[in-house]
Amino acid sequence: MTVTDTFRAAAADILGPRGFTCDPELVEPWLTDWRGRYTGKAVGLASPASTDELARFVTLCAAHRIPIVPQGGNSGMSGGATPDESGTSVLLSLRRMDVIRDFDVAAQQITCDAGVVLQTLHETAEEQGLRFPLTLGGKGSATVGGLISTNAGGTQVLRHGTMRAQVLGIEAVLADGEIFSGLVPLKKDNRGFDLKQMLIGSEGTLGIITAATLRLVPQIGERRVAWVGLPSISAARELLLHCEKVASDALEGYEVLPRHCLESVLAHVPTARSPLAGTHAWHALVELVADPGDAGQLDNLVTEVFESAMEHGLLEDAVISTSEGQAEAFWQIRDSISAAERAIGPAMQHDISVPVARMAEFVETAAPQVEKRFPGTRAVGFGHLGDGNIHFHVLAPAGAVRGEWERGDGKAISAFVHDRVTDFGGSLSAEHGIGQMKRDELGRLGDPVALLLMRKVKQALDPQGILNPGKLVPLAPHAATP
Amino acid sequence: MTVTDTFRAAAADILGPRGFTCDPELVEPWLTDWRGRYTGKAVGLASPASTDELARFVTLCAAHRIPIVPQGGNSGMSGGATPDESGTSVLLSLRRMDVIRDFDVAAQQITCDAGVVLQTLHETAEEQGLRFPLTLGGKGSATVGGLISTNAGGTQVLRHGTMRAQVLGIEAVLADGEIFSGLVPLKKDNRGFDLKQMLIGSEGTLGIITAATLRLVPQIGERRVAWVGLPSISAARELLLHCEKVASDALEGYEVLPRHCLESVLAHVPTARSPLAGTHAWHALVELVADPGDAGQLDNLVTEVFESAMEHGLLEDAVISTSEGQAEAFWQIRDSISAAERAIGPAMQHDISVPVARMAEFVETAAPQVEKRFPGTRAVGFGHLGDGNIHFHVLAPAGAVRGEWERGDGKAISAFVHDRVTDFGGSLSAEHGIGQMKRDELGRLGDPVALLLMRKVKQALDPQGILNPGKLVPLAPHAATP
Repeated sequence: MTVTDTFRAAAADILGPRGFTCDPELVEPWLTDWRGRYTGKAVGLASPASTDELARFVTLCAAHRIPIVPQGGNSGMSGGATPDESGTSVLLSLRRMDVIRDFDVAAQQITCDAGVVLQTLHETAEEQGLRFPLTLGGKGSATVGGLISTNAGGTQVLRHGTMRAQVLGIEAVLADGEIFSGLVPLKKDNRGFDLKQMLIGSEGTLGIITAATLRLVPQIGERRVAWVGLPSISAARELLLHCEKVASDALEGYEVLPRHCLESVLAHVPTARSPLAGTHAWHALVELVADPGDAGQLDNLVTEVFESAMEHGLLEDAVISTSEGQAEAFWQIRDSISAAERAIGPAMQHDISVPVARMAEFVETAAPQVEKRFPGTRAVGFGHLGDGNIHFHVLAPAGAVRGEWERGDGKAISAFVHDRVTDFGGSLSAEHGIGQMKRDELGRLGDPVALLLMRKVKQALDPQGILNPGKLVPLAPHAATP
Repeated sequence: MTVTDTFRAAAADILGPRGFTCDPELVEPWLTDWRGRYTGKAVGLASPASTDELARFVTLCAAHRIPIVPQGGNSGMSGGATPDESGTSVLLSLRRMDVIRDFDVAAQQITCDAGVVLQTLHETAEEQGLRFPLTLGGKGSATVGGLISTNAGGTQVLRHGTMRAQVLGIEAVLADGEIFSGLVPLKKDNRGFDLKQMLIGSEGTLGIITAATLRLVPQIGERRVAWVGLPSISAARELLLHCEKVASDALEGYEVLPRHCLESVLAHVPTARSPLAGTHAWHALVELVADPGDAGQLDNLVTEVFESAMEHGLLEDAVISTSEGQAEAFWQIRDSISAAERAIGPAMQHDISVPVARMAEFVETAAPQVEKRFPGTRAVGFGHLGDGNIHFHVLAPAGAVRGEWERGDGKAISAFVHDRVTDFGGSLSAEHGIGQMKRDELGRLGDPVALLLMRKVKQALDPQGILNPGKLVPLAPHAATP
């Protein structure tokens, strides 16, 4: 028997027939990321049913030095859950671990396995009059473990924060197979370093998250969604400041998009209709909410926010949802942008953040710079203006060949965009993580002191380098040279 | 010249006459913690004026293997800023670094040096119509650096979180003298491990925080403080749930105290008066606030909260402040408990947390257990019930000799209390940190996997062990054996 054969036999022994397979038909669907950008190979697919099983399995991997690539819903944006092409890694699915372990309704806390899907979490909370205040497009596949590992964001970050802000406790299996038991649902705990913070956002490179205790918030009593026409993204920023001042905690979401994004959606989504009659250079989607007790006062607040905005000349036109259906239709436009842009042709997508105060200036200067430097392209920025996080997409010139263009000009465009972001003191990954897609760019543009710290932590916690190798942590400078 | 002499000369050269001294008159006041529990010795007192000066100084310390004990306002609760008695460490004061570097009012963000005092931060924010939402008794001395290093709490955690929740970015000097520049004021940033989270709450053992970018929130429009009489701590918990449900984000604070604490304050603070006419076993202090725009609605909310609480039999009696002076007087009672208890006689103080839902049960069972096991003692719990964080004080029997009692019975009492806390899945340090006071208890009761992780991180970031040695990180098991 080869080493691999020995390993496979031992893995099957620990995990059982449902927990370990090398059947290509079962393994292959998970070897490519959902957008089809990355494909890898694997020794096999492990799907443990419990933390204890996983701990024994990781101990086995450590003994055989078999690298482990953890995977949740396989709906990440940066290739972080796809193995490399060497075929030496084992793919580890957390999807079988999908139990809600505990739900303390009074304390508004829920403890669940890493494999619980976001939509299930939403529904479980709603059944008890609560909600989990984070959502995103992939909610039907994204898992709690994946969301924590990537510190996911979404459209409710403005009021509620990213995934990090929702996590009260974590359980994880470490590189040596030991179980870190940090599920204690304590609101305050200063017993030394906050180890769970290291694991959040570490993309499976420091440990494998197996369960988490999450905070919940009360359900929304009512919401109003406004669609606003604006002359510029600077005007959108002014309106945002106005909304924050007048509406305070009632401001649940604030998204922006330029005319081009709206037109793309109207052209490619048959059911979509323009919310406003006129033409505007920019649009803002503003969601205001009331707690169940205050629902009666929401319309007063909405009137106050938008009448005073109108008086101060902060907007060109606005329409406010009068039904839940209309509110949903406005959000549908926002959520259809990526698909509509994809239908037009190839595009390089950049999930970037800059200081909120500088976002308008960034979009107004970087977009024309990109279009000038790469003739025929079109640069559009849309998304979470309230968080200083824009999805900055550069659309290929007409006739560009999908696949070829991304690997050629596309790569140069991304480097150009990341340089501009760095000039603005921004981040080349606001909410999608680093994965394999941005690892080398992080190595190129990251602060050397921070990169060295990351490598030291990685080396300390995973000295054999078996946890999701090749992801997130940039190579040391000497190693990067061919 | 001895090694120490060489080091002192080089330190004076880097830091200048105002920045380094060995004059006992200047050094000694800082060698004892403010409560007089810990005293140490030091090679000298370093007071750099800038991050660059500090970086060069740390490089010097690293070359000479001179341990560094960072100190902010010297008002910590766990001896974390006091050197040991060996006299081999240098005391590092951050107090000279007290510049507000940047204040972005629109973005509600402020960047300041580590030595800025909390009260100064409050006043600076207030001048611009904003506030920094964390406060505590030592605000006149506590520094930003100390607050971050200990992840301090206070009386506003319920709504706004601990210090960790206020920190957007950090600058720090690492063990090798390198500067970690993480001040970027980005709301979302997923570039790898969130290194600032490792430094928050690490009590100077992983790096020396030199500056931070902090979030601010709008000023309060108006507040009402209610003083409530209750039959039990379980009743206080029921009322808390009611307030959270009805008042939601308007609930700014929720503190509890037993009758004994109120009586101690009334006996020892001449100006204090009982807010209620009758006698109650427990008392709650409830603060409700409104944003500037909503101030008119606050009285309606207060009426709604307490009328419905009365209807449901959730309280025995209540009085609501009708002036800012009265509100302040209610808080004054709460803030005088520690001093009043100290005036009575020696006490062992325990800053503990358990899951919020179990706090009532903890106090109701642990207090009689302590009093039975240690005859003559009296156990009282008071504080931040909303956070699941109680200050559990055990008062010495009449006639106990201050100093002697703490070292003898006191120690056994603390171990007994910490064992009960551990039985409840709680923490032996909720908000005061570990320092030197609780290091061995953390080693005794901490999860071995977590302790090993802590040691690995410490070893990776400070391999020479020169950053605040003897604090926070429990010794390895073999080292703990004499």
